[in-house]
Amino acid sequence: MALRAALRSRSGLTGLLSQRSSCSSDIRMSPLLVPQQRNYSTPPKIRVEFDQSTGVAVMHMQSPPVNSLSLDFLTELCISVEKLEMDKSCRGLIITSAQPKVFSAGLDITEMYGKSPEHCGAFWRSVQEMWLKLYGSNMVTIAAINGSSPAGGCLMAMTCDYRIMADNPRYNIGLNETQLGIVAPFWFMDTMKNTVGQRTTEMALQLGLLYKPADALKIGLVDQLEPEDQVIAAATQTISRWLAIPDHARQITKSMMRKKTIDKLTSNRESDIKYFVNFITKDSIQKSLGGYMEMLKKRRA
Amino acid sequence: MALRAALRSRSGLTGLLSQRSSCSSDIRMSPLLVPQQRNYSTPPKIRVEFDQSTGVAVMHMQSPPVNSLSLDFLTELCISVEKLEMDKSCRGLIITSAQPKVFSAGLDITEMYGKSPEHCGAFWRSVQEMWLKLYGSNMVTIAAINGSSPAGGCLMAMTCDYRIMADNPRYNIGLNETQLGIVAPFWFMDTMKNTVGQRTTEMALQLGLLYKPADALKIGLVDQLEPEDQVIAAATQTISRWLAIPDHARQITKSMMRKKTIDKLTSNRESDIKYFVNFITKDSIQKSLGGYMEMLKKRRA
Amino acid sequence: MALRAALRSRSGLTGLLSQRSSCSSDIRMSPLLVPQQRNYSTPPKIRVEFDQSTGVAVMHMQSPPVNSLSLDFLTELCISVEKLEMDKSCRGLIITSAQPKVFSAGLDITEMYGKSPEHCGAFWRSVQEMWLKLYGSNMVTIAAINGSSPAGGCLMAMTCDYRIMADNPRYNIGLNETQLGIVAPFWFMDTMKNTVGQRTTEMALQLGLLYKPADALKIGLVDQLEPEDQVIAAATQTISRWLAIPDHARQITKSMMRKKTIDKLTSNRESDIKYFVNFITKDSIQKSLGGYMEMLKKRRA
Repeated sequence: MALRAALRSRSGLTGLLSQRSSCSSDIRMSPLLVPQQRNYSTPPKIRVEFDQSTGVAVMHMQSPPVNSLSLDFLTELCISVEKLEMDKSCRGLIITSAQPKVFSAGLDITEMYGKSPEHCGAFWRSVQEMWLKLYGSNMVTIAAINGSSPAGGCLMAMTCDYRIMADNPRYNIGLNETQLGIVAPFWFMDTMKNTVGQRTTEMALQLGLLYKPADALKIGLVDQLEPEDQVIAAATQTISRWLAIPDHARQITKSMMRKKTIDKLTSNRESDIKYFVNFITKDSIQKSLGGYMEMLKKRRA
Repeated sequence: MALRAALRSRSGLTGLLSQRSSCSSDIRMSPLLVPQQRNYSTPPKIRVEFDQSTGVAVMHMQSPPVNSLSLDFLTELCISVEKLEMDKSCRGLIITSAQPKVFSAGLDITEMYGKSPEHCGAFWRSVQEMWLKLYGSNMVTIAAINGSSPAGGCLMAMTCDYRIMADNPRYNIGLNETQLGIVAPFWFMDTMKNTVGQRTTEMALQLGLLYKPADALKIGLVDQLEPEDQVIAAATQTISRWLAIPDHARQITKSMMRKKTIDKLTSNRESDIKYFVNFITKDSIQKSLGGYMEMLKKRRA
Repeated sequence: MALRAALRSRSGLTGLLSQRSSCSSDIRMSPLLVPQQRNYSTPPKIRVEFDQSTGVAVMHMQSPPVNSLSLDFLTELCISVEKLEMDKSCRGLIITSAQPKVFSAGLDITEMYGKSPEHCGAFWRSVQEMWLKLYGSNMVTIAAINGSSPAGGCLMAMTCDYRIMADNPRYNIGLNETQLGIVAPFWFMDTMKNTVGQRTTEMALQLGLLYKPADALKIGLVDQLEPEDQVIAAATQTISRWLAIPDHARQITKSMMRKKTIDKLTSNRESDIKYFVNFITKDSIQKSLGGYMEMLKKRRA
């Protein structure tokens, strides 16, 4: 099978689908880091710092090892975003990673492997929900991309109003789905078209290209590069410029620019879930996912 | 109120909304400048020079101090364009400013402040009419942007087939509506998207960005920079290249490229007027406009 | 008539419409070049080399002097593409020219001059068919543009997934229809918009611009320049990178990106033919075509 061969030949490939590590002992929790809004039995995957004086929240993704977008992670993220959205004093959101070397490695493969159609459907709905919440946010949103950001990680970054990436050539960003034999759904495509245009998207998606920061800047996939330790500072500086604009006018403008793209998913949400579930539960795809997980395990060992 | 705060904090802001000066004593009228087609009691705001030998008309906007787009100004402009459009010997139109330092400062604030809904509606219809006439013109249209061109001035420039701007870093161009707490309507957005693409438009409109000539060139908002005193000469040179193309083929091509965007306003014209009137006559917006006018008066004094 | 004047004034113009040379004695046929799939009485206009080991076919256009897109040529090309498309072992297609200095000079004028409406209609259907087959191909398609490529030649190149052009400033590429007083149909426009964006297309089509390779690269009309004798080698190298992607995922991605544009022609095919036939059989257009053919004859003599 083509996918399997591709996977075998790409042992160096980061991306798209990642496995949650069952080991979470290396989460360093300090009292400062405990969000006050929630109290799960597991460590929180999202840590939000909200500065009342500036109206800016910083959302740290802290799900080791690579901020995989699992159902739990996405649920927690959506709840956090929704709370901030409803808090009128919060006007801006910076999204960044607390994990080293990675912003987010994308969708969590374990949510789609050997799972029931119901589970796969619930998972996919949470991916949609994350996109709808972030792409349609009334807040100014800035991605502080302090590590690699393939597939779902890239999608999350593209939902933001502005993207600042660490200028480290070992990091990359892109929608690399085809490299694994799967296909970015239409709303991933639309988001990328809105960011870098039709032609660049056509080539990037067909080849599943992952761009180094300098190349991502060149095609407009990110807006600014900064030294790794200054990405969040730069995001903080940039967001103050965006917040100088009257909220109401900025929000209506943003909504008018993105409405058509958002409406397309909103009105096709169920069929999109059905399509995904049907695809991902196919024997051939399940086999490929299994092979990919084996490869990841061996690489780590 | 956010808009007011924004206005207070931006005393240096040019743009978007401007006030007609009640003093028009500084219009220098020479017999040569009197258009032959009309004879108003007030000095003409538009002066058209038509060269039969080349088929090119040059339209000088001469409404001091800053070519504000008032109802009278727009009406006069539309009549001039329509006359040229119907004159088969006129194949090209260069639009430029007779006022120093400014191409056009955009919509005239006095047409929307303290005016009846009927007046506001008539004013907005004239803005639409200007856009429809220029964006859909059969003539080759070139903007010779010899000064700053914010908001409505930028819109007018974007309707043209080609834009040449004075290479003076004190000038700027852009749709800066959000900076004043208002929103560029969908057809302003569409025109900008057709000019610089989705992503650049999204950021430019959300931030209400005004670009210096060099930056405007970089993003494709203008096509060419020239020394200030050579902008019209360059426009004349460029238009001859466009006129070398058979009219019929060029016109059909232009119409095919712009039809969808034009149809969208044509079929939503009344609702667009209703939306504008409803918005602009709101107490909060009227208060903001009042505050803005006060600020302009003080700055001049 | 404007077109005629334009034609007279542009004696140096290559392009758009070309005449088949009735002299085909300079086709050098070696046994190696004879395609095995067919056996016409006339020399084949298309020579296909298929390498089973790589899954890549190279299609050499060899219709002297300038690979004019005649009804016969297009029919032969479509049959060749269809055969390759149905051959599961063929995954990639490189299109190039066996003629010196030209990739393809575009539509064959003799198919539209003095011909019956029925003939013109059949011809236009074959142009549509070529576009539908290539733009919608499941294979990876690369244009190895080893010569000038005006009008229909440019269209053919734009249907491909990737374009490599010979870095020779004497060559050019573009949709120059308006220069001859005719208009690129909507699907030519759409293909170009998908390649270089709305604004560049608007200007390029209105002016009928032909770009030198360096300029074509700058606007994204081609993706890569290579020394003339290395164009095919570079295409071979590039296609292997595309073939590293699992076919199924790449094909679905390509189809999703192009579907809307393809559907638009598919559902307007008959009216597009009717429009073309009605236009091209007009007396004024026929006169212009006649004048153009006369000019070509004189230039050759």
